[in-house]
Amino acid sequence: MIQKKLEVTYQPFNKSTRVPPGTTLFSAAHWIGLPIDSTCGGRGTCGKCKVQLVDGGGEITTADRKQLRAGELESGWRLSCQAKVYQDMTVNVPELLRVPKAATMGVNRLVLLDPNVRKVYLELTEPTLEDQRSDVERLQDALTAEGFDMKADLAALRTLPGALRDAEFRVTAVLGGDQLIALEAGDTRDQSYGVAFDLGTTTVVGTLMNLRTGMAEAVGSTLNGQAPFGADVISRISHGMQGEEARTELREAVLNTINGILADLYERAGVDRDRVYEMVIVGNATMLHLLLGIDATPISMMPFAPTFREPLYLRAREVGLEIHPAGFVQTLPIIGAYVGADIVAGVIATGLAREEKIRVFVDVGTNGEIVLGSTKRVLCTAAPAGPAFEGSQIKCGMRATDGAIEGVTLTDRVELQVIGGDVPPRGLCGSGLVDVVAQLLVAGLLDASGKLKSREEVPEHPLSDRLTSVEGVRAFLLTENVYLSQRDVRELQFAKGSIATGIKVLMDVMGISTADVDEVLLGGSFGSYLNPESAKIIGLVPAVDVDRILSVGNTAGEGAKMALLSFRERQVAFELPEKIEYVELSGRSDFNDSFVSVLRFPDLEAVA
Amino acid sequence: MIQKKLEVTYQPFNKSTRVPPGTTLFSAAHWIGLPIDSTCGGRGTCGKCKVQLVDGGGEITTADRKQLRAGELESGWRLSCQAKVYQDMTVNVPELLRVPKAATMGVNRLVLLDPNVRKVYLELTEPTLEDQRSDVERLQDALTAEGFDMKADLAALRTLPGALRDAEFRVTAVLGGDQLIALEAGDTRDQSYGVAFDLGTTTVVGTLMNLRTGMAEAVGSTLNGQAPFGADVISRISHGMQGEEARTELREAVLNTINGILADLYERAGVDRDRVYEMVIVGNATMLHLLLGIDATPISMMPFAPTFREPLYLRAREVGLEIHPAGFVQTLPIIGAYVGADIVAGVIATGLAREEKIRVFVDVGTNGEIVLGSTKRVLCTAAPAGPAFEGSQIKCGMRATDGAIEGVTLTDRVELQVIGGDVPPRGLCGSGLVDVVAQLLVAGLLDASGKLKSREEVPEHPLSDRLTSVEGVRAFLLTENVYLSQRDVRELQFAKGSIATGIKVLMDVMGISTADVDEVLLGGSFGSYLNPESAKIIGLVPAVDVDRILSVGNTAGEGAKMALLSFRERQVAFELPEKIEYVELSGRSDFNDSFVSVLRFPDLEAVA
Repeated sequence: MIQKKLEVTYQPFNKSTRVPPGTTLFSAAHWIGLPIDSTCGGRGTCGKCKVQLVDGGGEITTADRKQLRAGELESGWRLSCQAKVYQDMTVNVPELLRVPKAATMGVNRLVLLDPNVRKVYLELTEPTLEDQRSDVERLQDALTAEGFDMKADLAALRTLPGALRDAEFRVTAVLGGDQLIALEAGDTRDQSYGVAFDLGTTTVVGTLMNLRTGMAEAVGSTLNGQAPFGADVISRISHGMQGEEARTELREAVLNTINGILADLYERAGVDRDRVYEMVIVGNATMLHLLLGIDATPISMMPFAPTFREPLYLRAREVGLEIHPAGFVQTLPIIGAYVGADIVAGVIATGLAREEKIRVFVDVGTNGEIVLGSTKRVLCTAAPAGPAFEGSQIKCGMRATDGAIEGVTLTDRVELQVIGGDVPPRGLCGSGLVDVVAQLLVAGLLDASGKLKSREEVPEHPLSDRLTSVEGVRAFLLTENVYLSQRDVRELQFAKGSIATGIKVLMDVMGISTADVDEVLLGGSFGSYLNPESAKIIGLVPAVDVDRILSVGNTAGEGAKMALLSFRERQVAFELPEKIEYVELSGRSDFNDSFVSVLRFPDLEAVA
Repeated sequence: MIQKKLEVTYQPFNKSTRVPPGTTLFSAAHWIGLPIDSTCGGRGTCGKCKVQLVDGGGEITTADRKQLRAGELESGWRLSCQAKVYQDMTVNVPELLRVPKAATMGVNRLVLLDPNVRKVYLELTEPTLEDQRSDVERLQDALTAEGFDMKADLAALRTLPGALRDAEFRVTAVLGGDQLIALEAGDTRDQSYGVAFDLGTTTVVGTLMNLRTGMAEAVGSTLNGQAPFGADVISRISHGMQGEEARTELREAVLNTINGILADLYERAGVDRDRVYEMVIVGNATMLHLLLGIDATPISMMPFAPTFREPLYLRAREVGLEIHPAGFVQTLPIIGAYVGADIVAGVIATGLAREEKIRVFVDVGTNGEIVLGSTKRVLCTAAPAGPAFEGSQIKCGMRATDGAIEGVTLTDRVELQVIGGDVPPRGLCGSGLVDVVAQLLVAGLLDASGKLKSREEVPEHPLSDRLTSVEGVRAFLLTENVYLSQRDVRELQFAKGSIATGIKVLMDVMGISTADVDEVLLGGSFGSYLNPESAKIIGLVPAVDVDRILSVGNTAGEGAKMALLSFRERQVAFELPEKIEYVELSGRSDFNDSFVSVLRFPDLEAVA
């Protein structure tokens, strides 16, 4: 997977970048913040992205012939979106004709507003005896003149004669890529929307985006309606194993969830469903398989081979999602059975594969997905952490809902942060669990092996009276009825040990140590709530300066929004599976060796 | 539309051809009977069609990079199916590795058996921890190794995990182009079928073809179920104008007709519907629009612009045609509202656009479609002949069914040829009408202006007692109750005048005279039954030697079969609309001028 990089230099800017063979001049420029002008977004149809070859390259593509004059071809002009780099090259970029709209999204990513969905207003010439082109050709020719390709499927063909004549040949064509989604009467360019969905096993979040302004119009979220069939992916898949009917049940449950959110978004934003043309949806491999009605059984069993990994672009009516029926649902690619499209979205949102600094991105959950790398090389894996971080298998564990202790500070007393504010604490959620263990380590009430001290060992400690035993097992009382047991500490040790081992294996494969890591990014619905310092104290993440451990929020949702707003970002996401090396832990002997060594908590000096 | 031709020479054969710019080296070779070896049929995926450039050309395509080694590229090897001719070129063709199967079809056309539907048997390696490729990739990689691209739609994805595992990863992949149609357990390559349909306004004919042998397994035909809604395209369209429901009625009527024929073909040939993967269907523009549920109203009204003209490749389940549900329905392109896919099929079947000799192809019917040309240039038009040739508007006219007089010879008595053999004659069908008029001209009972003689003008003629008058109009008695009236002669004059004028206009546009015409081809369900000599005597066709006037049968059906059996022929059909110049008669003043001059019948000496 590692290929020799090639150098491309852009004049007159004198900016260079190193890219894998086969990258287009257009993409390479975009990666170093040098957006080349383009109406068609790199599809080879508008001709605006032409550059002049100074050194290297020279092939003429069919698109070049269509868009450029013979004289231009001779002088070395080529479409940068079609010209692929197969040797070191230098090119001249003409002055920018327009400065595209941009927005900052994800983790400080500058995203150019260039959605895959485009609306083009056309005043077509009507047919005459001298001009008997078909409706399709009339529309295609007008769109070609504006720099767009267009294909119409059977459903679109059926609407064409009526739509054109009812609107007296003044129509707005809505394109998803080069596919015709709709022909609307008159000029409707001011109404163009899309939705971005993060389809989590537990929670589903949807955002209605205005594709014209790049702004969110409304956000909605709810629990995944598949919850009654099991809390995690394995139990969902098990349910699906009962047969076709059970899979339909799972599929309909999640469709209802998403369509419910959609209806709510439309109502709140006052947007018509028929003006919503595209959905970008990300989720883990299982969630995407079940949404599409594809048996996910092989994902749950060795050797974990999913049915598909490639990004899919499907008509909404075919999937059953209630945007414009002829609109499209775009999934992002999957890297492996346990590194899904949500992680690909996370890599886009963090820009991890596009910056010089070396970063670790961890999505902490039942499976800890880990990505390590920089623009040079990117590795990823999934570490089976078990349910501790979700508050499960923990004596007083609970989900992060009202009454859950999500933060703990131990001084001479116990300070608790409880979700829901004034409600009485009912249990510990994942971030609270990590906090209390970290604080007990700092307070000297827990040793590095993970053993809770007894009241007798630390009689002078102001919190010693909270050390007790419950059902014959040592415990630390947080409130009258919420406590942390010795067994809970062991569960957490296994969970954090698994993720820490995953990180260590990736660092070993890359040949780097903690000192080489510039940043640690905590993402996902749980990771974002983790206290970075606590994560460091328990040794969940490498011991870098605590201000280099960042909570990056819902990177899956952010990545989905970026792919919705920017065709270029989407292309980058599509290319990621080729760039990211997946390291399977199950097969590695060093995983088990490392695992034992990282079960202990780090020395406090080491993480100070 | 007329482009400068470029010369391509193939070594070591020293064979040359002149082709329009943009033609591939592969296609150009095929046209001169030099089939270059290929597994993928010119899709750029098998790498077998490589040739070495001797002179001209040189561009390297993406497919070249994928299929050829760097050393080969340097020595000038290119995939001939990707290399387009933009200048005069000379290339070396390596020795043929295999001689493809071929069959003679249409009008002496040699067709290489190279169907678009391919079956590939695969024994896939099963997934392991070291090989976690998705099912899609596993299949794609195996097919790539065999020289095939593959894409799977959502319906295919849903069947994939089960199909692979139930068959223990030994499957036959069925491809329509690069789309996955089915995955069948085990090796099923010996069962591969397709159907070719000629969807006529009156009659629908279907042929079940064995794609492995190229042989027809069964043929079936029946009247078009749309008949109750009108005999001709205009009355069908009028019915459809009543709205969506009426169009659904029309659509379902023809679907029932075709599906009925299909069920009958399957039963007679003992072939399972799920082994029938593709249908090629041709028909006039109206028939194709109505079949697909597309409003055909604009076809019936000035300026006659259809909704689509391009060839469509649609899933059978989407169209409602009962072959394999994931199989494909391929329509051939339409040239204009009144020169449909049936005529494109006719051009393929006759090879009219691919031979040196200049030929006129006429499909005689309510609309006479005319194609004139050779490999150098091709013109076409549609002449509104009216219903006379269908036996309509003729006093004793009838369809060509039992009891219709289809042939007439006049000596000193009247000899009749009646459809159905021993049944009593009930009326005149089109070919009988043409015959009797021609024979009356020869017998001297009808003058060149079209006037029937009276009994008094030719008292000595052995047939003079058959000259009579019916309801005050002159008539010629064929039997006691079947006669030809003076008005019928006028109707025929208008009908033949329209077609003769169409031919004359095309000859004028091309700048040729009758002496330059090498052959006249009479096609279509009616034209094929015409007596060539009679057609010549009445001046329907140019006055060439009668042995150069050929009945060529159901060229529409033959062309459909050729496109079904040969991907290359299909490509040729796809390119025809670009090559054939359509001449619209409605807008031309010379049409009306010529029309008057050709209403008369030719002098008998001129056609002798």
